[in-house]
Amino acid sequence: MIGPATYYRPEHRAALDERTRALIDRREAVLSPGYRLFYAHPVEFVRGSGTKLYTRDGEEFLDVYNNVPVVGHAHPRVAAAIAEQAARLNTHTRYLDEGLIDYAERLVEAFPAALDTLTLVCTGSEANDLALRVAKQATGHRGVIVTENAYHGVTTEIAAISPSLGGDDSLAAWTRTVRPPVGDGRAMVADAERAIAALQAAGHGVAALIVDTAFASDGFLAPSPATRATLAAVAAAVRAAGGLVIADEVQPGFGRLGATAEKPSLWGFVRHGLDPDLVTIGKPMANGLPVAGLVARRPLMAAFGERVRYFNTFAGTPVSVAAARATWEVLHDEGLPQHAGAVGAALLGMLRELTGGHPRLRDPRGAGLYLGVDVVDPATGLPDQPAATALVSGLRERRILISASGRDNAALKIRPPLPFSHGDAERFITELEGALRDLG
Amino acid sequence: MIGPATYYRPEHRAALDERTRALIDRREAVLSPGYRLFYAHPVEFVRGSGTKLYTRDGEEFLDVYNNVPVVGHAHPRVAAAIAEQAARLNTHTRYLDEGLIDYAERLVEAFPAALDTLTLVCTGSEANDLALRVAKQATGHRGVIVTENAYHGVTTEIAAISPSLGGDDSLAAWTRTVRPPVGDGRAMVADAERAIAALQAAGHGVAALIVDTAFASDGFLAPSPATRATLAAVAAAVRAAGGLVIADEVQPGFGRLGATAEKPSLWGFVRHGLDPDLVTIGKPMANGLPVAGLVARRPLMAAFGERVRYFNTFAGTPVSVAAARATWEVLHDEGLPQHAGAVGAALLGMLRELTGGHPRLRDPRGAGLYLGVDVVDPATGLPDQPAATALVSGLRERRILISASGRDNAALKIRPPLPFSHGDAERFITELEGALRDLG
Repeated sequence: MIGPATYYRPEHRAALDERTRALIDRREAVLSPGYRLFYAHPVEFVRGSGTKLYTRDGEEFLDVYNNVPVVGHAHPRVAAAIAEQAARLNTHTRYLDEGLIDYAERLVEAFPAALDTLTLVCTGSEANDLALRVAKQATGHRGVIVTENAYHGVTTEIAAISPSLGGDDSLAAWTRTVRPPVGDGRAMVADAERAIAALQAAGHGVAALIVDTAFASDGFLAPSPATRATLAAVAAAVRAAGGLVIADEVQPGFGRLGATAEKPSLWGFVRHGLDPDLVTIGKPMANGLPVAGLVARRPLMAAFGERVRYFNTFAGTPVSVAAARATWEVLHDEGLPQHAGAVGAALLGMLRELTGGHPRLRDPRGAGLYLGVDVVDPATGLPDQPAATALVSGLRERRILISASGRDNAALKIRPPLPFSHGDAERFITELEGALRDLG
Repeated sequence: MIGPATYYRPEHRAALDERTRALIDRREAVLSPGYRLFYAHPVEFVRGSGTKLYTRDGEEFLDVYNNVPVVGHAHPRVAAAIAEQAARLNTHTRYLDEGLIDYAERLVEAFPAALDTLTLVCTGSEANDLALRVAKQATGHRGVIVTENAYHGVTTEIAAISPSLGGDDSLAAWTRTVRPPVGDGRAMVADAERAIAALQAAGHGVAALIVDTAFASDGFLAPSPATRATLAAVAAAVRAAGGLVIADEVQPGFGRLGATAEKPSLWGFVRHGLDPDLVTIGKPMANGLPVAGLVARRPLMAAFGERVRYFNTFAGTPVSVAAARATWEVLHDEGLPQHAGAVGAALLGMLRELTGGHPRLRDPRGAGLYLGVDVVDPATGLPDQPAATALVSGLRERRILISASGRDNAALKIRPPLPFSHGDAERFITELEGALRDLG
């Protein structure tokens, strides 16, 4: 989730040009007041290509923010696959469709052998909602353990396990939070033991631990020997209590964390050495079409399928699958996970160099093209949310799209489309330096 | 939901051709065991156009089942709009997008004035899930009243208010069921009064009444003076208890019930004289792309938006909106709601004539192109689910796609794409007669 101060608010209206004002007025008249626009100075794009987005006036923006168009904006192969299928047939999964089967085979093959069964849904929220339904039914328990600033989605059930939503949208009585696997991880293990005991004492039992394997809303944690040991200990405790382990790959999955010869996996849970029972996937899966899924151990889904009727009308339709297949093929044919590993490492190096000379930046971190860097007050060294917001706004004026995230909304979140080039990285660093200078 | 006996089961495998067997084997190896295929003899389609679907061998099927491709399979205008937008730009609602605004304006204008605010989501389940979240927050209550065989979706929250799912997937403690508005409606009113009292006594209070305005899984109820009076009385009782009224238009909406000069509305709730606080829409909205929505009274969404952060990544994206806009335009340019009214009336007449001469059929009913007819045992006059299943299978062999629905899965459910022609209606009736003859 991004910081509230990087949204448009009514007091920004006076400074806007006439067209933007008119569009905002029309938008506000018909859309729910819950809709938010990025930036005090909102942007209207009319075209995209690769890592670039273009306004009506032809201004080019570099996209350092959008993770959904994973193979690049409006990728011609994905667009062609969608166009061809939409003009031919779009039904549902209750008729035979070889395209669905082909895609499912390729996808499942990219997971560890025990995770052998795919269920398609439309959104990450639906994927996590279904994962919890399966876990609760399989275990007979209903307690869920999440990290302390986790975000897993927006259905009623999933909002109730998403502390980052905060406010009135409070956690369920059967949700418990634990600190993320930072440092030596002892805090997370201790928290998990307490959470398990509390859930058991309350009669909820432990249905599942669910973790975003990029720990994005908890401040970005790259896989390390310490995260491996910590997560292994927590997963073992959860399993000993009869619970299941769910890896939420909706954001980190499909190669965003980069792939190298030694670490070729597309999935964050593999990098963390986690051995989940259920894995949810989504956002980049079809480069922008609403496609998400649940990859699971077969016995869990067999038991669920025997007792529960589940049919998702729009999931796994030929057009959705055509988009997902094309995205998968481009991802591999263009070697984007490997590219993300290489260019991400270079960008992390540039960020480290920049951080060394700038007291406002601290602790650049992450993996592949999922990076974060804290914005701090140079005097106190504490997270500086207003400065992060000013940087996001300053970068928007420099035609760079980025956001702030993390507990304090004071970490810059770097997660561009994967074709992000070395030149793109240099342009981003140059403009970030400029925006830092502007801050004074 | 369709009757379990119209699905493929392993014992049907031996009778299948080699290709179908091979596809099923591959499918079962990678997809969740919960996936179901229609028919003992599953069908593989490779192309669609209008109301027809075609197999690899060029066999033509008449589609009397699929409500999602509302303007016809693979409609060229919808396909072209999707293709154009996918090749140009697909982002999200946090940037300005005039296409989204245009569409929202047109859609909201087609609702009564008080229902003035749109929120887009991806699936009918998400729409109903959000509607309940809004209702629960607005009222401070959590009790929900549904009809006794209702189906509203598959998230954890919505499965808990969907009695038609049955089995272990049981209703929540805060769900109460009422009979649908049949006959003089007194049963529904009495049930609602009891449900309200019970929810209040249990401390849940009444958050909402939610009704599918086609009452499809409750056996199809066309709008009538009796349904108007009954629903008005139930809605008044719910409001007196502090609850809201939600119309689920996911299936009946967008003109399926037909439009005439006297009854021009696209929405079932208008036809039933209901005055809802929240309306959910979905299935046909984008002719097959995952698009759904919630149309609501603005004060409800303003209060919700102030207290809850809600962002749906894939909802209202330019490609989804392009598909929804094109579907909306075709629906109007081709006069499909009016066509559905006219051809639906003719088809209902043909069904009545057929029913008069066939003791196995009873009570043809419905509105527009959303019709049902009961299949009964000629000896007892009771619902005959095996005969309904045999008819569905017999019609599949005659290249007609249809299903059985209702409480006993003994009602034929007729809900074709809206371009269904008079000739299509005659072909369907001819084949239905043949399938009835085959039954003996």
